[in-house]
Amino acid sequence: MTIAQIATAAGVSAATVSKVLNGSAEVSEATRERVQALLVERRYQRRASSREATPPVIDLVFAELDSAWAMEIVKGAVSAAAAAGLTIALSSLADGSGGRSWLDQICSRGTRGVILLLSRLSDQEKSELWSRRLPFVVVDPRGEQDPSVTTVGATNWAGGLAATRHLIELGHRRIGVISGRPDLLCSRARMDGYRSAMEAAGLPLVPELMQWSNFRVDGGFRATMEMLSLPLPPTAIFAGSDLQAMGALEAARVRGVRVPDDLSLVGFDDLPLDEWTSPPLTTVRQPLAEMASTAVRLLLDGDPGERPEARSIELATTLVLRQTTAPCREAPPPGPAPRLPR
Amino acid sequence: MTIAQIATAAGVSAATVSKVLNGSAEVSEATRERVQALLVERRYQRRASSREATPPVIDLVFAELDSAWAMEIVKGAVSAAAAAGLTIALSSLADGSGGRSWLDQICSRGTRGVILLLSRLSDQEKSELWSRRLPFVVVDPRGEQDPSVTTVGATNWAGGLAATRHLIELGHRRIGVISGRPDLLCSRARMDGYRSAMEAAGLPLVPELMQWSNFRVDGGFRATMEMLSLPLPPTAIFAGSDLQAMGALEAARVRGVRVPDDLSLVGFDDLPLDEWTSPPLTTVRQPLAEMASTAVRLLLDGDPGERPEARSIELATTLVLRQTTAPCREAPPPGPAPRLPR
Repeated sequence: MTIAQIATAAGVSAATVSKVLNGSAEVSEATRERVQALLVERRYQRRASSREATPPVIDLVFAELDSAWAMEIVKGAVSAAAAAGLTIALSSLADGSGGRSWLDQICSRGTRGVILLLSRLSDQEKSELWSRRLPFVVVDPRGEQDPSVTTVGATNWAGGLAATRHLIELGHRRIGVISGRPDLLCSRARMDGYRSAMEAAGLPLVPELMQWSNFRVDGGFRATMEMLSLPLPPTAIFAGSDLQAMGALEAARVRGVRVPDDLSLVGFDDLPLDEWTSPPLTTVRQPLAEMASTAVRLLLDGDPGERPEARSIELATTLVLRQTTAPCREAPPPGPAPRLPR
Repeated sequence: MTIAQIATAAGVSAATVSKVLNGSAEVSEATRERVQALLVERRYQRRASSREATPPVIDLVFAELDSAWAMEIVKGAVSAAAAAGLTIALSSLADGSGGRSWLDQICSRGTRGVILLLSRLSDQEKSELWSRRLPFVVVDPRGEQDPSVTTVGATNWAGGLAATRHLIELGHRRIGVISGRPDLLCSRARMDGYRSAMEAAGLPLVPELMQWSNFRVDGGFRATMEMLSLPLPPTAIFAGSDLQAMGALEAARVRGVRVPDDLSLVGFDDLPLDEWTSPPLTTVRQPLAEMASTAVRLLLDGDPGERPEARSIELATTLVLRQTTAPCREAPPPGPAPRLPR
């Protein structure tokens, strides 16, 4: 299948097809979509020579570059790319001139592949990537599972389960949970891990102790302030991110609640600063750098001319015990002891 | 001056000169140095066409990608590059295959310019960058001032002065200082700002209260533990980085010293997490993102064929008051009141 054949089928010139392939802005929306549909349908493949001419670069595209979390991903990607003699090109959609310019810019320059950390990937963006035969991997998928897209994530559900079980084993019964936005997959998985651990132990799910928030420090601060104002505040909190846990620490300090004496706290991520919060934070380690380096390897492993078979990989999370959890000091409530999930 | 003329002068083939210009590894060290010396001496300029063919990329080269500090620089550079339609390519020397491979890789791929965040830039690296007419800017210069290199930094001395004056104005007399390695310019400037503020106020410089350390959390922790063990511990500490200040907070917690009641603390950097340390950290704001975007603009402003006139720019630091400083609760020592520097 050549560019000329695609052009004939689409009723446009070969130059127009080239412009679509190269991400030029000079093509109308309707034409672009028609040509892209044909490129995918007829399985157009660029010649090997043009693939070899692409610059030795892998693109890392963030929705937004913020927090120490993004830095861990960047470090892992830079390191894995360097091992393959490649450089990481970094973009943030928050800085783009809007719309799909990030994709056009990448296509006109060329790349060996794209690692995406986005809140969502539109059908149009997927079809543009496929039509140009650009391999791509989504790291930490946020939206619905898409069986056609290769993703690298972490075992968020198992991490939520492990964190909550740890608190139950310390004798806590009134355990609060803070997670991120409910439309993010990882938020839901962490919350569900909490639910399963509580239910398996025969503990009630109390709506006031289950908060959806945002993953930032202010989200954890607000949710913790609310829970500490309850007539029966929790004796332990599982926060869905380390930044939320830092907000929870600050809320406890403001309220004069001592961690871990009066309140146990578990975070999620294991950012490099966790060892140095006061006190050092017990957390669920998410292997962020390994997730990024796995994505780099997945990009480079495939045959660049072939659309790779989609895979979903989840790397294991692990509980890292530091100093923000302690045995519950309240007398256990009457009734049978909770059944610990095994 | 053409490649052929350089080749004749160096006694090598034109192909060899091209290899040197393109960063090929196939040239012996001696030949490379001879050709580079001639390229600089005879003011060789690439043709405009080859400059236009360079990819729309600016390289950001770190000695090591670590800490929230690096992330702030990356964010500023990505944002300024995006505004100019360019992408940031990110490298870390810690991940390189050693030696000067980073430079060869950049040269063989092409770049619009290089922003360097290195512990030092060797004479050979400078001469390689110049011989290839690659514009470069050093951000946060660490070593000796080099009048031939354009640098962007912050007013480290003025920041150290402002932090220390703030503590003196709160009535503190025994003020400790922690800075980074003494061979780094910014460490020395921050320490000297402290010295000047103390001397101008007529306060003695006590060697046990002046510690050279590293800029990381563990450096601040160790230095603070030592100072808190003194027979007369300080009532206030100026830490040369926010990470050090986090270590100081942890040391105070471990020793049961309350911040700010028993110990006032000022950091340096204003990382995004400062608002959320417990208590929120008073610090000297270093405009890291603005430093990076200034470097991007300096790279793009110049005529790419001309070696730019070297400039040194220092962006202003500002004191950000939060909750880790308080009036000294000790009775003032006998004698005249200190003279506050103005």
